[in-house]
Amino acid sequence: MQIKKFPKKILTRIPPYTIKKPRGTRDFSPREMEKREYVEDSIIGVIESYSYRKILTPTFEHAELFQLKSGKEIEEHMYVFEDKSGRRLSLRPEATASVCRMFAEELRGSRLPLKLYYSCPMFRYERPQMGRYREFWQLGIELIGPKGPESDAEVIAIAYKSLKKLGLKFQLEIGHLGILRGLMDALDVDEEIQNMVIASIDRGDLKNLKKLIDKQILFDLMGIKGDKGIIEQADNLLDKYPEARKSVNELREVIHWLDLMNVEYKIDLGIARGLEYYTGTVFEIRVPGLGAQDQICGGGRYDDLIELFSGVKVPAVGFAFGFDRIMKAIDLQEIKIPRKVTDVVIAPVSDTVREEAVKIASQLRDELSVDMDLMNRKLEKILEYAGDIGARYTIIVGPEDLKKREVTIRNMESGKQKRIRIENLREEMIK
Amino acid sequence: MQIKKFPKKILTRIPPYTIKKPRGTRDFSPREMEKREYVEDSIIGVIESYSYRKILTPTFEHAELFQLKSGKEIEEHMYVFEDKSGRRLSLRPEATASVCRMFAEELRGSRLPLKLYYSCPMFRYERPQMGRYREFWQLGIELIGPKGPESDAEVIAIAYKSLKKLGLKFQLEIGHLGILRGLMDALDVDEEIQNMVIASIDRGDLKNLKKLIDKQILFDLMGIKGDKGIIEQADNLLDKYPEARKSVNELREVIHWLDLMNVEYKIDLGIARGLEYYTGTVFEIRVPGLGAQDQICGGGRYDDLIELFSGVKVPAVGFAFGFDRIMKAIDLQEIKIPRKVTDVVIAPVSDTVREEAVKIASQLRDELSVDMDLMNRKLEKILEYAGDIGARYTIIVGPEDLKKREVTIRNMESGKQKRIRIENLREEMIK
Repeated sequence: MQIKKFPKKILTRIPPYTIKKPRGTRDFSPREMEKREYVEDSIIGVIESYSYRKILTPTFEHAELFQLKSGKEIEEHMYVFEDKSGRRLSLRPEATASVCRMFAEELRGSRLPLKLYYSCPMFRYERPQMGRYREFWQLGIELIGPKGPESDAEVIAIAYKSLKKLGLKFQLEIGHLGILRGLMDALDVDEEIQNMVIASIDRGDLKNLKKLIDKQILFDLMGIKGDKGIIEQADNLLDKYPEARKSVNELREVIHWLDLMNVEYKIDLGIARGLEYYTGTVFEIRVPGLGAQDQICGGGRYDDLIELFSGVKVPAVGFAFGFDRIMKAIDLQEIKIPRKVTDVVIAPVSDTVREEAVKIASQLRDELSVDMDLMNRKLEKILEYAGDIGARYTIIVGPEDLKKREVTIRNMESGKQKRIRIENLREEMIK
Repeated sequence: MQIKKFPKKILTRIPPYTIKKPRGTRDFSPREMEKREYVEDSIIGVIESYSYRKILTPTFEHAELFQLKSGKEIEEHMYVFEDKSGRRLSLRPEATASVCRMFAEELRGSRLPLKLYYSCPMFRYERPQMGRYREFWQLGIELIGPKGPESDAEVIAIAYKSLKKLGLKFQLEIGHLGILRGLMDALDVDEEIQNMVIASIDRGDLKNLKKLIDKQILFDLMGIKGDKGIIEQADNLLDKYPEARKSVNELREVIHWLDLMNVEYKIDLGIARGLEYYTGTVFEIRVPGLGAQDQICGGGRYDDLIELFSGVKVPAVGFAFGFDRIMKAIDLQEIKIPRKVTDVVIAPVSDTVREEAVKIASQLRDELSVDMDLMNRKLEKILEYAGDIGARYTIIVGPEDLKKREVTIRNMESGKQKRIRIENLREEMIK
């Protein structure tokens, strides 16, 4: 990577320099951040109630990490660059490969299971459109170690309960890639073609799919969607394919656990997922009405990926929320998110009382969020500002009141004012 | 940017693929993340008590944004890359330029002051060494709008109180670039040379400094360091330079407010700061014993930067904590950080009781963090695991107990066990 000097033409331009944020990226205002953090905290609350713990991997990795198994769809949209030593790096386009690399490099000695979660930005160079950004956030979990259907069910239940707690309406659909792959194995389809088939199904590209494979049973299988009873159709369809039926059985067990956990779902054997590393149970969550980008969660079991990096076979299952789409769904469904308010704005009415006002602010800050006027404005303007930022109270500090060691508290909602002795202020405000 | 295909040589290599994290980056384990989040939350608690609110800007920006005023030191170490449309982008090497860009692009209509903070990774391509990483975190605030010494003092007080609350021992030093610049203006030093002088002072490069400027008074001024009384020396030294003395007066006022806010500090007129955009009060915080990278905070007033992007003169002052160095200081000073523990591990002793165990786990998760064994392990192994992750209790679910609708609770610290009816479990555990 060579850093070119800043072009002279621009440097000699006259300020102001109109520099915009890069296309497909966003700034988040205080109000947006407060909403995002509320939603993030709510989801993390559920995840932590299952004893998962947060980790973080680097924002960029060696590019080859993601080229091995994340799939063509992702590889084509990576932000790849070379550093000054000629290393080929890529901004993280997804997190699971990084978590597996971290496991191989640093956590392989840990006692299993590892219950991990992350929440950080991802980067893909795609055409920006509604609900799709070049820098976007994912919040996801990875359960490393356990193998059984019960662990698949736990992971799905965490996704489900996180969204329920937010009050969202959504649809959870569950499938199993072992069924598709088991069938294709039996049909002697080689792995590279299998990956292409699965990618085509994921894109909904039936035309290409028909070119790749010409077996009606595959299309019949893909069409199995509905309530849990529909799983028997798969069993009947696959009566000559015992390997694929094993996976049907596994799916049946996952569903048994989900029922016990009070999780509502549909079956969809046409779920394929774009990432190449999934091996078993897969699931997707959609919010109707979100448009083309209506999938807010995707996940599944990937039992071979960790072995690829560590040489040790360690099964794993996880999911990622598309955090920006969850935020969009919350707006769409008009779910109210409480405002984080400033408790008190302190308004000194003249310069002579500013020192006393600063002392009052200090006293209250152990318990409250206190905004001291720093613009030397008139009371009227400070009250306007306090209203703008949604402050609960304004404390008016005036020279006459101060002589009696008093201040005036104004309730910003009701407009009511009362005088109070400074020594009682803290108690009055935090009650 | 052209994405080259993955080299064939590596793709045909036999797994496992040993891929490491890029040099100068880190993975954060659950325990490290928990410590980092504890410290971050503690600092944010102080910042929010002053009514500052969180924002976030993109991870990368158009490279020119940082080339305008962040200074040569930063420009030389930027991660610059081109995207597929040939845009020259840079990973964010510092946040203040981004915040000013965001202000110009999106917040210029806001009522002032804006009290903002951010906490996110920065990227600089430097030789990694102790306490210096290529991806590192900054947590900082920007106060946009107010001009007076009182606002400088508020910003300094927030940095000071954030670190005090953590129990850290540190040194806060305050200077004023208006003094240096006022003197150089009077000596007719042009702005480009002034910036080079300031950069040389910041690097401690006296040799270069002497080449740039040959005035003893500048060196005398730089040498003024000590308690607040020392400020009178500057006044005497600068008696022929009224512009520079104005800044001495301003510094005196800042100090007056700091005294009122119970902030302890030293004066150091040799503080220059590497970033070119500072115009007034500047300050640095160091932790003795941290080695070459002992500065954990730096900040100051930058009254011209926002105008550069927005065309509107808006004064501002802020600081950034070097978050990784704060974490290092906490380790060095052996400050204890509480562990975030799992409350309960549920141990089903046989397959027949697993369903009941899952139901018990569900019941407790509204209030507690509950880890359900998913590895089908023997009780002994589950107890080892519970000890490893620091769980407070293990709830042992056995078939005999279950017949009486009971389970056994084991206190993991004392090793004491007791039996309890399932209907009373929730109450017992959350008391």
